[in-house]
Amino acid sequence: MRIAIDAMGGDHAPDVVVTGAVEAAREWEDTTIVLVGDSAKIDALLGKDKPANVIVRHASEVIESDDEPVKAVRRKKDASMVVAGRMVKDREADAMITAGNTGALMTMGVLVIGRIKGITRPALAPMIPTLNGTGMLALDLGANMDSSPEELVQYAIMGSIYRNKVHGVHQPKVGLLNVGTETMKGNELTKAAYPMLEQAPVHFIGNVESRDVLNGPCDVMVCDGFAGNIMLKALEGAASTIFSALKTELTRSFMTKLAAVILKPGLMKFRRSFDYSEHGAAPLLGVDGLILKSHGSSNAVAIKNAVRQARIAVKNELVRSISTEFSNGSEM
Amino acid sequence: MRIAIDAMGGDHAPDVVVTGAVEAAREWEDTTIVLVGDSAKIDALLGKDKPANVIVRHASEVIESDDEPVKAVRRKKDASMVVAGRMVKDREADAMITAGNTGALMTMGVLVIGRIKGITRPALAPMIPTLNGTGMLALDLGANMDSSPEELVQYAIMGSIYRNKVHGVHQPKVGLLNVGTETMKGNELTKAAYPMLEQAPVHFIGNVESRDVLNGPCDVMVCDGFAGNIMLKALEGAASTIFSALKTELTRSFMTKLAAVILKPGLMKFRRSFDYSEHGAAPLLGVDGLILKSHGSSNAVAIKNAVRQARIAVKNELVRSISTEFSNGSEM
Repeated sequence: MRIAIDAMGGDHAPDVVVTGAVEAAREWEDTTIVLVGDSAKIDALLGKDKPANVIVRHASEVIESDDEPVKAVRRKKDASMVVAGRMVKDREADAMITAGNTGALMTMGVLVIGRIKGITRPALAPMIPTLNGTGMLALDLGANMDSSPEELVQYAIMGSIYRNKVHGVHQPKVGLLNVGTETMKGNELTKAAYPMLEQAPVHFIGNVESRDVLNGPCDVMVCDGFAGNIMLKALEGAASTIFSALKTELTRSFMTKLAAVILKPGLMKFRRSFDYSEHGAAPLLGVDGLILKSHGSSNAVAIKNAVRQARIAVKNELVRSISTEFSNGSEM
Repeated sequence: MRIAIDAMGGDHAPDVVVTGAVEAAREWEDTTIVLVGDSAKIDALLGKDKPANVIVRHASEVIESDDEPVKAVRRKKDASMVVAGRMVKDREADAMITAGNTGALMTMGVLVIGRIKGITRPALAPMIPTLNGTGMLALDLGANMDSSPEELVQYAIMGSIYRNKVHGVHQPKVGLLNVGTETMKGNELTKAAYPMLEQAPVHFIGNVESRDVLNGPCDVMVCDGFAGNIMLKALEGAASTIFSALKTELTRSFMTKLAAVILKPGLMKFRRSFDYSEHGAAPLLGVDGLILKSHGSSNAVAIKNAVRQARIAVKNELVRSISTEFSNGSEM
């Protein structure tokens, strides 16, 4: 198996990306890791201890986090992200991983690798941490702000196949993000999508409310990118606001500081369960090749974990399963 | 001044509504409170101590919380909420307050009282608590799930007038709920609304993200009802999930229970600042009369506070100010 990694993508690239890649190569010797990017920098980081199953592919350009996606992908033809994508397209790599610009990645997926037949728009599908620890796949949480009801159905099918193939979930429960649980709740989009989801080849359990998301009401949640982003950022914002206010409470007096010492280990662990950056890479589903997007702030462990995810998805033929499902006429 | 109160609306009606109304009547002797609803029940609750400035208007029907709004308003012509609305329409009351069915209230506002000229759809505008204590008016958070860009501009104008007239905020800052702070972020709706808000007679400060809402980035936040509800329920859900998990942490062992005793007063106060039901009644803006919607779970204090809010809005001629602004051609 060969996995291409965009060595130049992410806040801490290339250092942590190279470190994570080397750790992955050491753990899985049957896998060749291709580090794509500035070969001088990468070679310097690899040094003499480079495992035999790590190779470097030079790419002279880098897509920056603030680059305009379409322009960047069209103009920077030798960008590390684009070169890694082309390797997937040409079957030189079974998967690619990047922690770079999300919008550019979605554009690259469509322009360089191409969509699976029957898919209108690929969707980015991160796992949202839930209190019960199982997590929930939510899509689209990428750059498609407006979605059609048909696209929500495509998301439901692709998300279900991912949960099944990669996480081994039998008959994943699919929920529709909405403002109430009753059938006819919502806006024009959700009202149109609801009956179509009932007919789709998925285990649709109905509407789910943003207030219940952290309790993990379903395995796959579908939404347009705007509503999904509003929800996710509200959850993150509330968590971060509450924890920082809690910190103020805990340092208010000598007595509360004493209490804080007792509570610290439990609270730290609890705080981490709300950290969205620690919950693995998000697949870009609907592209005719396996792409995983790591969080921009990924550390070496996150990069290594993305390799683990990619290996499972490749072994279980995720992309071919999605492609087969849609060519069998279940596309809407 | 006369304020009509729907005595039958809300989870704890008519008991707490009558109690709150009597307390308000005692505090503000220049105000006549008209309790609308089942007169036998209301009289029994009032007993012998009824203040002279409390009167009862009988209404034989009640709109229930699960009634279908349009059907309920059309069929239950003698419902307490409808009768109170008719009093506002006929200028028999300067304002009305209800803790009843929100959808029915919005329907009643349009069908019985009518819209202000230039307003396409009235909007429900609750205050969202913020950490700095000032709060943020958000609209629409009612039953209009889809909004047009023109309607978002109407919300911005009405919300600004409300913050100015009722809260005394000079040049209220208006923000647009969005997925990023950059100008061209968002979906078709927010992209179309942004340049229109820049031209509108309000102090528009740009996009605000749901992750920053609790820090109070603006005085008025505009959004369509779907996105607004998704955001609000995500904030509520995260707060409630975190506090309940925190409770589990605090009761884990003898030592953490000891710590909990020290922290309890601070934490309780802090928890309450996230309680959306404690932040006053929401005006239904855009209706040609003053309507305030109290939270369904309102207690007597909340009802009394709604009377206080109504008095300020009436004294400062809120509805006439909105009406004047829109008849002066600032309607879009």
